[in-house]
Amino acid sequence: MKNSSFLVSFEGIECSGKSTHIQSFISLIKDQSLSAQLFREPGATTIGEKIRTILLDPTLEPSETSALFLFLASRAQLITEKVFPALENKGQVVILDRYLDSSIAYQGAGEGLGEQWVEKLHDHFPLDLRPHITFYLDISVQCSFDRMKKRGDATDRIEKKDKDYFEAVRNSYLNLSTKFPERIKLIDAEQPIDKVFNDIKEQWEAFLKDGHA
Amino acid sequence: MKNSSFLVSFEGIECSGKSTHIQSFISLIKDQSLSAQLFREPGATTIGEKIRTILLDPTLEPSETSALFLFLASRAQLITEKVFPALENKGQVVILDRYLDSSIAYQGAGEGLGEQWVEKLHDHFPLDLRPHITFYLDISVQCSFDRMKKRGDATDRIEKKDKDYFEAVRNSYLNLSTKFPERIKLIDAEQPIDKVFNDIKEQWEAFLKDGHA
Repeated sequence: MKNSSFLVSFEGIECSGKSTHIQSFISLIKDQSLSAQLFREPGATTIGEKIRTILLDPTLEPSETSALFLFLASRAQLITEKVFPALENKGQVVILDRYLDSSIAYQGAGEGLGEQWVEKLHDHFPLDLRPHITFYLDISVQCSFDRMKKRGDATDRIEKKDKDYFEAVRNSYLNLSTKFPERIKLIDAEQPIDKVFNDIKEQWEAFLKDGHA
Repeated sequence: MKNSSFLVSFEGIECSGKSTHIQSFISLIKDQSLSAQLFREPGATTIGEKIRTILLDPTLEPSETSALFLFLASRAQLITEKVFPALENKGQVVILDRYLDSSIAYQGAGEGLGEQWVEKLHDHFPLDLRPHITFYLDISVQCSFDRMKKRGDATDRIEKKDKDYFEAVRNSYLNLSTKFPERIKLIDAEQPIDKVFNDIKEQWEAFLKDGHA
């Protein structure tokens, strides 16, 4: 597997444990003598960080479609400027903290822009780049809200949205994992933390064994 | 015609005289007891102006696709925040200094992203909003370059591009005016300035007479 490079994305609603498990995944990758590089969306490039500032500025109110195109602009830049060059290196694992499935679930389903349309916007270079494997960390919306309350930092715009919104987002993720079972691995992220990571690890090792190495 | 509202766009390559003729057109509109509102792309909204800053920053180098999505983000915001509300007012003429045809010509043809694809990106709400009439001010690339040199301010990124680029852009505009003759009025903008504006005026008055009033 040191002769290949891999693109891996993590997806899930708020407080599904993405950040924690990404860190554990990076440790695992390094134990396997692979290199890890992590990029966050939106952001990760100078342009992407400027776009992130616009999207998170509470005094600005981008329309749903404007916000979607800002996400896509950040993503296109990230792929061209960072992901493609990184994937040139053998033994490199590029990890994306959110990627196209986030747009489909949040903007397409949550905001109601249409999942099919948002997916279709990713049919054209360079947005047609797909991860080799996606870990979707599934938790119920109630679990998400309980964890958010516990964390006490539900301050940014996205987390202020109501329950119906997050139900639509979660359903979209579930549909995507049914539609693309080869790529998207559904992980039950309401389990104890060690068990969740063990599932991620098993899926990753199965993926490597399954002719991808 | 005071019972209608109109969306009008001006298009053309650098130094085709857009700004000058837009000002004359605004005077004409006011003489006709209509109200004029002018918006510039990218920009015109707080978000659009922030996007404009990114696009014109010489230290940033957005990829072609990233730049396209930034233009679309600015445009979507402009339509939702400014154009739709303005068009609610009877007797309002909303004038756009560049609009979708610029994206098709510059990004689609000039940058090589594909004119069909860029046009297709405008098939979805709110980007599916089309002007009632578009004045395309046609000049040759040589004329554009001569005028730029005379003006002595060919400093921003776009104007640094080479001749082939602008030939592709101009050809795309010409093709568009053939493809959508009802909407896009081709104006020979190498004529003396008064003659150019007279052509614009005639097309506008014909448009109003032709059942649009």
